[in-house]
Amino acid sequence: MVIIIQCTDRVGLIASITSVLAKADFNIVSMQEHVDLDENKFFARFVADGIKFPQNIERAIVKVLPTGAVVRVNPLPEKKIVVLVTKEHHCLSDILTRNHFKTLGANLQCVIGNHPDLKNITEQFGIPFHLVTHENKSKISFEAELTDIILPYKPDYLILAKFMRILSPEFMKSFNLKIINIHHSFLPAFIGPYPYRQALKRGVKIIGATAHFVTNDLDEGPIITQKIIPVNHSFTLNDLIKAGRENETATLAKAMQLVFEDRVFIFNNKTVVFE
Amino acid sequence: MVIIIQCTDRVGLIASITSVLAKADFNIVSMQEHVDLDENKFFARFVADGIKFPQNIERAIVKVLPTGAVVRVNPLPEKKIVVLVTKEHHCLSDILTRNHFKTLGANLQCVIGNHPDLKNITEQFGIPFHLVTHENKSKISFEAELTDIILPYKPDYLILAKFMRILSPEFMKSFNLKIINIHHSFLPAFIGPYPYRQALKRGVKIIGATAHFVTNDLDEGPIITQKIIPVNHSFTLNDLIKAGRENETATLAKAMQLVFEDRVFIFNNKTVVFE
Amino acid sequence: MVIIIQCTDRVGLIASITSVLAKADFNIVSMQEHVDLDENKFFARFVADGIKFPQNIERAIVKVLPTGAVVRVNPLPEKKIVVLVTKEHHCLSDILTRNHFKTLGANLQCVIGNHPDLKNITEQFGIPFHLVTHENKSKISFEAELTDIILPYKPDYLILAKFMRILSPEFMKSFNLKIINIHHSFLPAFIGPYPYRQALKRGVKIIGATAHFVTNDLDEGPIITQKIIPVNHSFTLNDLIKAGRENETATLAKAMQLVFEDRVFIFNNKTVVFE
Amino acid sequence: MVIIIQCTDRVGLIASITSVLAKADFNIVSMQEHVDLDENKFFARFVADGIKFPQNIERAIVKVLPTGAVVRVNPLPEKKIVVLVTKEHHCLSDILTRNHFKTLGANLQCVIGNHPDLKNITEQFGIPFHLVTHENKSKISFEAELTDIILPYKPDYLILAKFMRILSPEFMKSFNLKIINIHHSFLPAFIGPYPYRQALKRGVKIIGATAHFVTNDLDEGPIITQKIIPVNHSFTLNDLIKAGRENETATLAKAMQLVFEDRVFIFNNKTVVFE
Repeated sequence: MVIIIQCTDRVGLIASITSVLAKADFNIVSMQEHVDLDENKFFARFVADGIKFPQNIERAIVKVLPTGAVVRVNPLPEKKIVVLVTKEHHCLSDILTRNHFKTLGANLQCVIGNHPDLKNITEQFGIPFHLVTHENKSKISFEAELTDIILPYKPDYLILAKFMRILSPEFMKSFNLKIINIHHSFLPAFIGPYPYRQALKRGVKIIGATAHFVTNDLDEGPIITQKIIPVNHSFTLNDLIKAGRENETATLAKAMQLVFEDRVFIFNNKTVVFE
Repeated sequence: MVIIIQCTDRVGLIASITSVLAKADFNIVSMQEHVDLDENKFFARFVADGIKFPQNIERAIVKVLPTGAVVRVNPLPEKKIVVLVTKEHHCLSDILTRNHFKTLGANLQCVIGNHPDLKNITEQFGIPFHLVTHENKSKISFEAELTDIILPYKPDYLILAKFMRILSPEFMKSFNLKIINIHHSFLPAFIGPYPYRQALKRGVKIIGATAHFVTNDLDEGPIITQKIIPVNHSFTLNDLIKAGRENETATLAKAMQLVFEDRVFIFNNKTVVFE
Repeated sequence: MVIIIQCTDRVGLIASITSVLAKADFNIVSMQEHVDLDENKFFARFVADGIKFPQNIERAIVKVLPTGAVVRVNPLPEKKIVVLVTKEHHCLSDILTRNHFKTLGANLQCVIGNHPDLKNITEQFGIPFHLVTHENKSKISFEAELTDIILPYKPDYLILAKFMRILSPEFMKSFNLKIINIHHSFLPAFIGPYPYRQALKRGVKIIGATAHFVTNDLDEGPIITQKIIPVNHSFTLNDLIKAGRENETATLAKAMQLVFEDRVFIFNNKTVVFE
Repeated sequence: MVIIIQCTDRVGLIASITSVLAKADFNIVSMQEHVDLDENKFFARFVADGIKFPQNIERAIVKVLPTGAVVRVNPLPEKKIVVLVTKEHHCLSDILTRNHFKTLGANLQCVIGNHPDLKNITEQFGIPFHLVTHENKSKISFEAELTDIILPYKPDYLILAKFMRILSPEFMKSFNLKIINIHHSFLPAFIGPYPYRQALKRGVKIIGATAHFVTNDLDEGPIITQKIIPVNHSFTLNDLIKAGRENETATLAKAMQLVFEDRVFIFNNKTVVFE
């Protein structure tokens, strides 16, 4: 049983929560806790072992917490996700195979592409593919089409797996903090669409990738995880892109795992991640 | 205030401990907990904030724990250490400068060398250096001399900072789990005195260093931390040794930091490390 | 144009080789060279740019080299490979998608499994899958069946992508230095079939994966590349296996890239790798 | 013997150079070469073995190269350096001990501080310390004082080892490409004086350090090397600074090693680094 709690901090919180668990005869196998002292916020994740799952444990926990606490008990292990792509296959391929072999920790509902390039690989895995071209239509129409396709699937998260269209603040807000993006740089370095070109020009010796939640400000949302790889003078733009793709795939995979296992809290445009 | 607890596990432990803290008006700023399910052992580290330090908090905590619990409340931040060296300076230099600038987290009492090479650098920092040559004497005599010098300093830990003599099981047991060694390989690969030579022969692409507690079996004690560096075919034996030294220094420094901040528990020849 | 040379070393080799290239009006875009001084061996990889591909350049180069030199000019970019698997999908899935999107640098001819588990995913990508069960037959019969399937494909390399059968020295010798294996540990630590179990028991803080050529001695062949990931006390055996799989996939992918781009030389049970 | 060459590229360059070496009976033990195709520039580093050092080899090589070539034969292994510091000791301590044990690859001439904090540790190692306070004087006067102290030492490089004053473009130009700075961020992220504060605010999961040559634009010069360390939500500003210092020390040490071993070329505000 996993229990996720986010609330205002006060003395005695852990004692109160763990007393509730102890009374229900739950043993805490592992727990992680963080207090943001500046903001007086409490974050905790408990993994507890018990014989039977008490129906009212969530209510019992809420009762001992400050008003406004967010508690999730035993969150469903299988989130539902919708993936948005353009032409690059590396992140999608990884998601498709993990989903196929049940190691993704989420159920892939469908893939939406603004190009048809990834239709075949998607359908090969028995997953619906929706083509929503952005051409010859306003951003509002484009996003309305996206929304019409997405909503019936009731996804817990949208994954932008190298989706190369900039979404409007309105769209992003309507899926607030449910969108995960993979940005192909070590944010905040190289914001924008051409990070590898900028990296080449600047002569950096390391390139990175950043998986983050999307807020209304692109490339500015809470960072979930980052990974890097060393590069050197011999890397052409294509070499950077090629090496970067391996890193992007690994970074997005790691971020999804953390989110789907309920290890990530969002607060003040930052994340608390209990690895 | 840091509180370290190691004991048999049972339901309600955290509730009991944190209730004691809450009653004393302590707020838990961060805590880390681990249960070894196979062995039914509980490990926890609390950092708590409170106005005044209660004299009897340790006793109050022990009272709610199973028999045999190990509790340390507010362990002294400054451990006392004695360092043993031979001829290589890199780990010792790092310890001397950190000690000098009060960033070691421990007080260096003295350095003991079986060669005089590092006498000058040690004394330059105002630290006593004792030369204890191993030549022309039995291991028993050699170790008796070491012990005679070490004991009056009452060190919390002995640091083997590239000390190239093999100590007897008797000596090691007499300082049981208080000796930290830096081994110049990625244990358990390349046990023994010539890991770089073996690494060269085997053509590995990564070399490592391991900081570990010393038990009566050399190179077999509980591992505290490990670090690695990439190498390749162009590395000669000297290149491996040179690159390895940087890694050894960093690995030992990290291990000392973890131990001196009371983040390391030992159990069953393994460590639980709360980073 | 890529030129690969391995031969006995002598003064003036590079001058001789590059003179041949200069006369043919080739510009050397990048070159890497290594001399094994102990063994007096010369290894080099040239990338050269030129207008037309001279038919006789290989012969011209051989003419200026010592007897016994191995020279390959413009090796075909597309090697042919056959992959052997058991039940675990992670390495195979990665190979299948890279092969599908033409980013593998090799052409996957077929997959052979000693269990049927990975038949569907393989055929889904339009690749032939051969089931060769090892049950109720001698190792000799089993390997004879493997060989009968493999030989007609004329593969440049066999990839053991988590193939959990130990092959006989005879089989391995018959595909000498053409077999690439992914071993799920940081060799030479944890040789054998249960490295994660051993890693757990030893309490290591880093686990690794090793991609290597297979010689007649399992786990002892020339290492191509190694990667590691940090772990800690909280990892159960399953956590180690799960985290290890990500690492195995990445390590094998990297090794295949290096080999397929003709960056790897084998000599004296070690590799020279020009990254 | 190390030979460093930077010049305009053309067909046959390596053949010409290596013919000169072969005629002088030098064997090339290792060489690294890079051609910047966009800019038509050639960079190479040769390590050659020979019985006697020919007086005129540099002239012989220059003769076969395009006009304007930069050639350095057997550069003195011991560069002279001057180090500028403020209050933080970690980079300086590392330089002082390496210099003391002759593993720096350069000779430390003196240390200049704009605060007296590091006078003792410097003089303890027998190195002159010059206090040049920036208070109550114009930047021009301050820099004139620095220059007056530096020039007589005829240093090959100035090392800014956490020197917290911004130098004028005029000063930087007068030591053009001879100044190495350690910046406490993963450039180009977090330019400016407070990178850790910015990193904390942005919630990054990795922090970095960058060693670079200083041009007239601070934080914009050619990058020599970069290193990173993972961080998380539990890091306070002090934790970031503390962890960052370890990284800064290691990054500057690596950069100095690369530069002092003549492995670094500068071109177009980028570096070519032959590791």
